[in-house]
Amino acid sequence: MMRVVQVNKFGDTSGLVDAETKIPEPKEREIRVKINYAGFNPVSCKIRKGEFGGSCPIILGEDFSGVVNEVGKYASSLKKGDPVYGMSFVKCSNGSNAEYTCVIEELVHKKPENISFKEASSVPLAVLTAYKAIIASNAVKKGDTVFLTGIGGGVGSFAVQFLRHLEVKAIYTVAKDETSKQFIEEKLQIPSENILIYDGLSTTEREQQLIKMNDNSPFDTTLDFIGGDAKELCIQLTKCSGNLVTILPEDEKFKTPGWGGPVFMKNMTVTQVFVGAELHSEDRGRYLIYQQYLSKITKFIEDGVLKMPEILSLGSLSAKTVKKAHGLLESSRVKGKLVMEIA
Amino acid sequence: MMRVVQVNKFGDTSGLVDAETKIPEPKEREIRVKINYAGFNPVSCKIRKGEFGGSCPIILGEDFSGVVNEVGKYASSLKKGDPVYGMSFVKCSNGSNAEYTCVIEELVHKKPENISFKEASSVPLAVLTAYKAIIASNAVKKGDTVFLTGIGGGVGSFAVQFLRHLEVKAIYTVAKDETSKQFIEEKLQIPSENILIYDGLSTTEREQQLIKMNDNSPFDTTLDFIGGDAKELCIQLTKCSGNLVTILPEDEKFKTPGWGGPVFMKNMTVTQVFVGAELHSEDRGRYLIYQQYLSKITKFIEDGVLKMPEILSLGSLSAKTVKKAHGLLESSRVKGKLVMEIA
Repeated sequence: MMRVVQVNKFGDTSGLVDAETKIPEPKEREIRVKINYAGFNPVSCKIRKGEFGGSCPIILGEDFSGVVNEVGKYASSLKKGDPVYGMSFVKCSNGSNAEYTCVIEELVHKKPENISFKEASSVPLAVLTAYKAIIASNAVKKGDTVFLTGIGGGVGSFAVQFLRHLEVKAIYTVAKDETSKQFIEEKLQIPSENILIYDGLSTTEREQQLIKMNDNSPFDTTLDFIGGDAKELCIQLTKCSGNLVTILPEDEKFKTPGWGGPVFMKNMTVTQVFVGAELHSEDRGRYLIYQQYLSKITKFIEDGVLKMPEILSLGSLSAKTVKKAHGLLESSRVKGKLVMEIA
Repeated sequence: MMRVVQVNKFGDTSGLVDAETKIPEPKEREIRVKINYAGFNPVSCKIRKGEFGGSCPIILGEDFSGVVNEVGKYASSLKKGDPVYGMSFVKCSNGSNAEYTCVIEELVHKKPENISFKEASSVPLAVLTAYKAIIASNAVKKGDTVFLTGIGGGVGSFAVQFLRHLEVKAIYTVAKDETSKQFIEEKLQIPSENILIYDGLSTTEREQQLIKMNDNSPFDTTLDFIGGDAKELCIQLTKCSGNLVTILPEDEKFKTPGWGGPVFMKNMTVTQVFVGAELHSEDRGRYLIYQQYLSKITKFIEDGVLKMPEILSLGSLSAKTVKKAHGLLESSRVKGKLVMEIA
């Protein structure tokens, strides 16, 4: 048996409980990992609330680091004892809020040698999202000016590093208040004059001030890692024939039409990033892109192109620790990444 | 005075009348062209119906070829007597259904030496649309499989040639009936096995058969040059992390959400092409892209990369000729391009 934290009832964090369940057996092309650390992502809160459907109990948790503990009959990329990191989001026995998880081998990769298990557990989903948004999307090129919302989170802090790697001309962003601004300046090295404190400003004022800050020009590319009003602002800030990349879908209440409206009138290109896209395919050949992406990301980390964000370990595997993580994520006050120790 | 055909009342073709008006004077950075031939595009019918607003009388006509007849004080790119072609869509005195037009110099370019005035008048708007959709969008790369709707029109026939230039793996399309299929096979050199006759098939059947034809795979890139149901089909045919390029906006009745839905779930990139985008900017520096694009297009034509589509001249400048053109465009039975002789 193994210890897990599971959602017994969709809703607030009171549905999160400690439990025990059978250690899962790897299928033919799966890897079983004994988890050392689990990383938290905002999507966990949405699953907990039932926004992705499914039926309880559900064991949450997207990211993990650990050691290969068993290998399925036809799994060929890793062997018992390998230190690994990966994503137990879909196509896995259970999430990473558990002592063990069985995952298809394409979603597990050898841990970069130069980072700890704790650091590695904060990487997969956020980096894959940033990688798809910036590297795989081809939306950004050398010399571009980029506006980015949600810079303080996990995806944002990796995105900034990919943008620097691509040698963009400048990155602009917004901060809620002086404290946030200071974090962005110090931890992400964005110059003070590229950060607008947005609190108290209307959308039109935000737009006008940001364009003024960017030499009176709209931006080559805008990146929306928040959704809603942030996406509206990005649409307004994108230049003619420019690119918008977003990691969040919107419902019918969203003001700007998706087909036509300013997106058409500005000849815009929009990339809607969903890390799980290929995993929802029945064609297993498509899963290989995760292995390719994780392999490139591992190299980026080992080459020092990608540095780890701020990492805060909230405690060991327990419902109490998971509730704390969800509370922080839902407060939108998280800077960097939250993880939990398991073994 | 000059002869023109103008719209006196928005609505059906009965609003098109012969008229006389003053020959326009070029502003500081405009070129006046004595028009030899005017080309017709489907957008003319929409303007005639009042879908783009404005107030009557309006002189329609996007494309023209002719000779530079007068040059504005600060216009520097062309001189009197130059044989030219260009686009009198916006930022011009009047449309090309007239003996003369004054156009900002960025929208006028020397005619390619190896084509006639008649051929040149069929080029600008359709080629600029295809260029933005395929070359400028970066949506297509060597080796891709591409599905294309609206292949028989002006944009489609230029698009096919740009796709071949980029060395795509294969182009697939649909035809309404055997006659259309034969035109696509013979004139555009698409192999018979890449063309689906869609009449009588449901959207699901079309999707299934096209994917079957493409080695049981969805397409790397889909190109929608028709809108509505054709766009729905394109969305369904696009692979995970694939590209959709469309030249048509949609209204609220369009089924697929623009933000979220399959576009998000498949991690798609969508480019919405509108040739007029940069012309709607107040920043004149942006108009230069038209000069750049026309310069590249002229070279493509002179190098033999772009061949002219089927061209049908409907007669000389008169309301009768324009009505005939609109009638044909609205019947959706036009193959290639329609033009009108003026001088």
